[in-house]
Amino acid sequence: MPDTLIKVDLEQSAYDNEQVHNRWHPDIPMACWVKPGDDFVLETYDWTGGFIKNDDSADDVRDIDLSIVHFLSGPVGVHGAEPGDLLVVDLLDIGTKAERQWGFNGFFSKQNGGGFLTEHFPYAQKSIWDFHGLFTDSRHIPGVSFAGLIHPGLIGCLPDPKLLETWNDREIGFIATQPDRVPPLANAPFAPTAHMGKLQGAARDTAAATGARTVPPREHGGNCDIKDLSRGSKIYFPVYVDGAGLSVGDLHFSQGDGEITFCGAIEMAGWVHMKVDLIKGGMAKYGIRNPIFKPSPITPHYNDYLIFEGISVDEAGQQHYLDVHVAYRQACLNAIEYMTKFGYSRAQAYSILGTAPVQGHISGVVDIPNACATLWLPTQIFNFDISPNASGPVKHITSGVDLPLSLDRV
Amino acid sequence: MPDTLIKVDLEQSAYDNEQVHNRWHPDIPMACWVKPGDDFVLETYDWTGGFIKNDDSADDVRDIDLSIVHFLSGPVGVHGAEPGDLLVVDLLDIGTKAERQWGFNGFFSKQNGGGFLTEHFPYAQKSIWDFHGLFTDSRHIPGVSFAGLIHPGLIGCLPDPKLLETWNDREIGFIATQPDRVPPLANAPFAPTAHMGKLQGAARDTAAATGARTVPPREHGGNCDIKDLSRGSKIYFPVYVDGAGLSVGDLHFSQGDGEITFCGAIEMAGWVHMKVDLIKGGMAKYGIRNPIFKPSPITPHYNDYLIFEGISVDEAGQQHYLDVHVAYRQACLNAIEYMTKFGYSRAQAYSILGTAPVQGHISGVVDIPNACATLWLPTQIFNFDISPNASGPVKHITSGVDLPLSLDRV
Amino acid sequence: MPDTLIKVDLEQSAYDNEQVHNRWHPDIPMACWVKPGDDFVLETYDWTGGFIKNDDSADDVRDIDLSIVHFLSGPVGVHGAEPGDLLVVDLLDIGTKAERQWGFNGFFSKQNGGGFLTEHFPYAQKSIWDFHGLFTDSRHIPGVSFAGLIHPGLIGCLPDPKLLETWNDREIGFIATQPDRVPPLANAPFAPTAHMGKLQGAARDTAAATGARTVPPREHGGNCDIKDLSRGSKIYFPVYVDGAGLSVGDLHFSQGDGEITFCGAIEMAGWVHMKVDLIKGGMAKYGIRNPIFKPSPITPHYNDYLIFEGISVDEAGQQHYLDVHVAYRQACLNAIEYMTKFGYSRAQAYSILGTAPVQGHISGVVDIPNACATLWLPTQIFNFDISPNASGPVKHITSGVDLPLSLDRV
Amino acid sequence: MPDTLIKVDLEQSAYDNEQVHNRWHPDIPMACWVKPGDDFVLETYDWTGGFIKNDDSADDVRDIDLSIVHFLSGPVGVHGAEPGDLLVVDLLDIGTKAERQWGFNGFFSKQNGGGFLTEHFPYAQKSIWDFHGLFTDSRHIPGVSFAGLIHPGLIGCLPDPKLLETWNDREIGFIATQPDRVPPLANAPFAPTAHMGKLQGAARDTAAATGARTVPPREHGGNCDIKDLSRGSKIYFPVYVDGAGLSVGDLHFSQGDGEITFCGAIEMAGWVHMKVDLIKGGMAKYGIRNPIFKPSPITPHYNDYLIFEGISVDEAGQQHYLDVHVAYRQACLNAIEYMTKFGYSRAQAYSILGTAPVQGHISGVVDIPNACATLWLPTQIFNFDISPNASGPVKHITSGVDLPLSLDRV
Repeated sequence: MPDTLIKVDLEQSAYDNEQVHNRWHPDIPMACWVKPGDDFVLETYDWTGGFIKNDDSADDVRDIDLSIVHFLSGPVGVHGAEPGDLLVVDLLDIGTKAERQWGFNGFFSKQNGGGFLTEHFPYAQKSIWDFHGLFTDSRHIPGVSFAGLIHPGLIGCLPDPKLLETWNDREIGFIATQPDRVPPLANAPFAPTAHMGKLQGAARDTAAATGARTVPPREHGGNCDIKDLSRGSKIYFPVYVDGAGLSVGDLHFSQGDGEITFCGAIEMAGWVHMKVDLIKGGMAKYGIRNPIFKPSPITPHYNDYLIFEGISVDEAGQQHYLDVHVAYRQACLNAIEYMTKFGYSRAQAYSILGTAPVQGHISGVVDIPNACATLWLPTQIFNFDISPNASGPVKHITSGVDLPLSLDRV
Repeated sequence: MPDTLIKVDLEQSAYDNEQVHNRWHPDIPMACWVKPGDDFVLETYDWTGGFIKNDDSADDVRDIDLSIVHFLSGPVGVHGAEPGDLLVVDLLDIGTKAERQWGFNGFFSKQNGGGFLTEHFPYAQKSIWDFHGLFTDSRHIPGVSFAGLIHPGLIGCLPDPKLLETWNDREIGFIATQPDRVPPLANAPFAPTAHMGKLQGAARDTAAATGARTVPPREHGGNCDIKDLSRGSKIYFPVYVDGAGLSVGDLHFSQGDGEITFCGAIEMAGWVHMKVDLIKGGMAKYGIRNPIFKPSPITPHYNDYLIFEGISVDEAGQQHYLDVHVAYRQACLNAIEYMTKFGYSRAQAYSILGTAPVQGHISGVVDIPNACATLWLPTQIFNFDISPNASGPVKHITSGVDLPLSLDRV
Repeated sequence: MPDTLIKVDLEQSAYDNEQVHNRWHPDIPMACWVKPGDDFVLETYDWTGGFIKNDDSADDVRDIDLSIVHFLSGPVGVHGAEPGDLLVVDLLDIGTKAERQWGFNGFFSKQNGGGFLTEHFPYAQKSIWDFHGLFTDSRHIPGVSFAGLIHPGLIGCLPDPKLLETWNDREIGFIATQPDRVPPLANAPFAPTAHMGKLQGAARDTAAATGARTVPPREHGGNCDIKDLSRGSKIYFPVYVDGAGLSVGDLHFSQGDGEITFCGAIEMAGWVHMKVDLIKGGMAKYGIRNPIFKPSPITPHYNDYLIFEGISVDEAGQQHYLDVHVAYRQACLNAIEYMTKFGYSRAQAYSILGTAPVQGHISGVVDIPNACATLWLPTQIFNFDISPNASGPVKHITSGVDLPLSLDRV
Repeated sequence: MPDTLIKVDLEQSAYDNEQVHNRWHPDIPMACWVKPGDDFVLETYDWTGGFIKNDDSADDVRDIDLSIVHFLSGPVGVHGAEPGDLLVVDLLDIGTKAERQWGFNGFFSKQNGGGFLTEHFPYAQKSIWDFHGLFTDSRHIPGVSFAGLIHPGLIGCLPDPKLLETWNDREIGFIATQPDRVPPLANAPFAPTAHMGKLQGAARDTAAATGARTVPPREHGGNCDIKDLSRGSKIYFPVYVDGAGLSVGDLHFSQGDGEITFCGAIEMAGWVHMKVDLIKGGMAKYGIRNPIFKPSPITPHYNDYLIFEGISVDEAGQQHYLDVHVAYRQACLNAIEYMTKFGYSRAQAYSILGTAPVQGHISGVVDIPNACATLWLPTQIFNFDISPNASGPVKHITSGVDLPLSLDRV
């Protein structure tokens, strides 16, 4: 078995683990070093560092301080990596921690993060998903089970100072355009809860003050939440600093395209077995600005779908110009409405869209004024027939179970 | 063989065919009638009614009057169909016309329609694609050939007066917010070039004045340009008028997600063999607002992809809030840049994205402020290895061939 | 559209068509000539030349003179092809004849050909399958419909005199080991019903006397009945004579691995659109003795199967040594028995195995004394759930319809 | 994590582990008990109990005493299981032992077991395969690597006395027809090396004298070596004794259809995470004689193949009647010959066929006198292009590495 270069103890605070960090900054020291061609294992916390519990209350989802996320394992230094190279990462395998055979999915309160459909689901809710080998199901959502398309939500290399400055300028400037918005337009650096890995004292404080938050995907990859970046994938990352500095975390047992529920996919602690290599000068050779990747040869092959369309006219009938975001929201709302006819609550249906291997396609994006987006719901994840027929839908879900909900504190 | 209920003669003007129309209006008379359970064939013009020629000039793409599109075959009346029903349509097969074994793809001039990347490709360009049974290739784009994922770009039922009014109010109001924009925000009704099928005289003129243009996808489906709505699919359409009034056209031999080139996918004339059936009261039973569908069991299974990421920061470095449109544009530009390293012109690369079975996924849409979109380029369509490796790219395309370009008339 | 080099008139006897033949012999003149790189269309009769009718009697299956089969279109001469080359054939598309939208499947009487399970199904039976675009179903077998994996059962190049002699020596010698067997061990040349294409008079008679029957697959390919050699495939055929002499026929709309019913798959008349090219000296370069091929990128992707196992102990409990034939027969019998629990007659079940895209795998072939074969029954072809569950099977097939059967004449 | 009910210590002799056995007999006591609905983990030895080493000599393959195989973990008793039930087994996951990240493949000497192509490969040879997460490669076979289709070669329930008697009668009688054959026709019970689990003393000796060897697949399943019975599969086993008595072993990291190399697939020690349930009286309800199963939704999806044909004429030109075994052997020999053109030794090519996810199809089995079998070689497992083209093959494999070979002792 390859060496485990970073271990995490789920009983210990992530802040006490020097090989973990929750901000992007070139000054974060390498947690460990490897050579091109090496393969090794990194353990990771779940993105919240264990804040969300396996219980039947959404209070933790409501109360979490989102400035603490995401706890990443790394950075891993790669000998010989230089700015302009491509770091080739093979995700040889990804797994769960033996002692933690469950994950969570939820919706944040509109007061604390919100989500894609936060106008429709304004309060904190949560579902717990149990792992059974390759498969998962939830006691909060009957009638559905599926094989996980396991992947890291967040992976990428350290930015250099210039790239970091670009990020900060761009996002702080953006926040300034609408500073009081709830949820906010973006998240500015925030030193108090920054975990800068091995960096200590004044150096830590200086870096923490400008360390980029880990929430958005950016040029380096980062929090892309691409469900298909699954075990077996091969990724080509831009390198900005000597040693590359690869970090990974925010593992998902499964996720739908868009990660629309935002309090994650099926969020889990676990480990990643990866191999690294270099393409010297690869950024210029291949004209690479963002990471590119090749998908895994071994992923769940559900191929019977029920496909919902949405156009860029919003719920209020308002026209938007070729807006795929609006179109996808309509496709999602259409799918939720449909699933309620089989007995699901709207919250259960929303959670299915966030967790199952749902595809979201940009189907048409030029037919003014309407974009068309499609949501592909795999029918084989349901243990009943969810296709339409002449006799109409049967209410298969009759258990009365629903997702726990926690109202906002007043 | 089933009856061909609508025939088109490619030598004849589409305006002279009474079973063809190019606007949506409830007053358009049924072109023919069928019963639930019937299967039948409809022939169709290409969307421009034959305006674009198989030659090596883009003048026709530059000069086309876009108010004439799309020429649809129908409406087909279905006995017993009533508002609130779902019309179940099986696309049993779709094919080309024996006498027209080619299709076209192009980019409109920014002065005449534009497209997804019109800032980057402001002038009219065109490529011609030859059909070889299931496969296609283009003399303007070497090194690539693929099996067609053949489908109608446009299909749907007639709106009722109330829905039509909603469309017109919504879109005319939208145009009014920026009336001088080029390309425009939307297309208002335009009587002079309206083809209202069998409707003649004053009734024709009245309907033509408010007939909705066929460009955007809307609640009824319409110009969705969903590449996966291919032969073998089963679609459930909302019915708004007695008899349903199903029309179809704008056939594509193949298309990438988004139809980003806008002067189409690989546009073709052809025929559709379909079967219709009804789910009485299905709209309410299943909570249907837009069409839903099930994909075909028989489609090209290219499954090795090179996947490009894009985030919602535009080419100028400007931040956009969770804007999937911007993110997908970046993914497309990244793919184009990459392909140039193998010898393609940017126009050739753009055309490949518009025509090949490229997937566009809404990968992450909650990680503020950046949406993440991915563009999936199937590697098996190239007759050389397009994956990155340590030795760098090889310029395989060295023929000097490129897409014809026509500058705007002055 | 490419030229149709061979046309067949289904109202005319195949014997009257000079571009058709039903024996393999190097003296058969080329029916037409093409150049490497050409693509063209060949029409074909069904394998029996139209003997089997679309009706509800199996008398024609019982009474057919099997010495007349298979009626092949060709041979097509390819300029420049020489012995030792590989002829590269792209099956660009395959289709049905517009005027004949149906095919047949049947079991021969044990007295006239028999079949894989002739001990269990000793009498002539037949089912008729209607084509609906890409799909087929049968009035004789309710509850099942599927997309066709359309392919030629028989395709290959003319043998040279030496190869022909090898075949005749081998097979005539083999028949001599058990000359009175019913069904026979093999079929010897038989001049009276031979159709030698353009060859006439004494030359015809001489060749007919030694022309190899078309029933078995041989070194050149021939009647391989490989269901995956479908439209979109690329095949590399050994060339034995100048001009190659490619012939094709015995089209199948769909077939299960093994073509176990023998009176065919779903047998049809139709056309093949193909392209030819050469690899000069390819047989030696690649060490080719039998054809090799690459499968189509566009085939039905049913992927949920119920898999039945069989071992090489026969129905009587008799042990056979690593005999895959016996093992596959047991797997087939197991599948038939299983399907009867849902209401199918044994004949209907047998016919499903012969016609649907069933896979037959050689699973284990070294674990003495038992071979293990598996039969993969696609579950998605049934319009009900055919998987086992705790409540036991439901008899979905209750119509009382069955396959017509004709007892042997006495 | 579920309980590990059977642990194996790879440093300890399998004979010392009471929860392991290597014969089938109803008297073997249950190693442990579970309830329907339970999920649990069983660890297993490799099939030889660790006899084959990770080195560069084939002496161990030559010298192994094959009467010791296969070491199975179990039997697991299932409360409530009775004869006539179906035991439903979900293979939730399968994995390797952390301390043993490699497996072996080999050919037995013709003097000691032989194999499918033993006439062509008469001496002991071996290759070692290293595991890298989901993937494997071998230092003895350059240019090839692939994702494992991991599965148990051997799994099934205990026979009852009557079934055991049937087996013994059948196989001992069969051996008697050719008692001196090398390799033998079958393996008779053999007490000295029998490991009867917890059974001790006289009871052990009595049972050992009639305990069926584990080599062949039989009615209960057993050593089926079905590569597709992979993790994620659901299997329905016949139950013959109270408690069912499920045993499993002979794990394979990957295997080609037929397991033609016989000294295994890629043989490994590991663990199986499974869940059990019951269908009461299921054997009669569903007419089950052999196990049936549903494949996994998550397996490697290599889908580009080079397909080789074989017919039932053997290497000496001898005709065999519809003999799939002979036909598959020819297809294998054709593939081996082909691979040598790219630089592989014949032994390397043979090993690839035994280990990679190669498909073996029974393509045609009625076209007298020739069966047609096809071998599907996935092209995506090679790190070079192995398809034919006009310029001829390139010798990519030039390292001079080959499989270790050990001549027979004299």
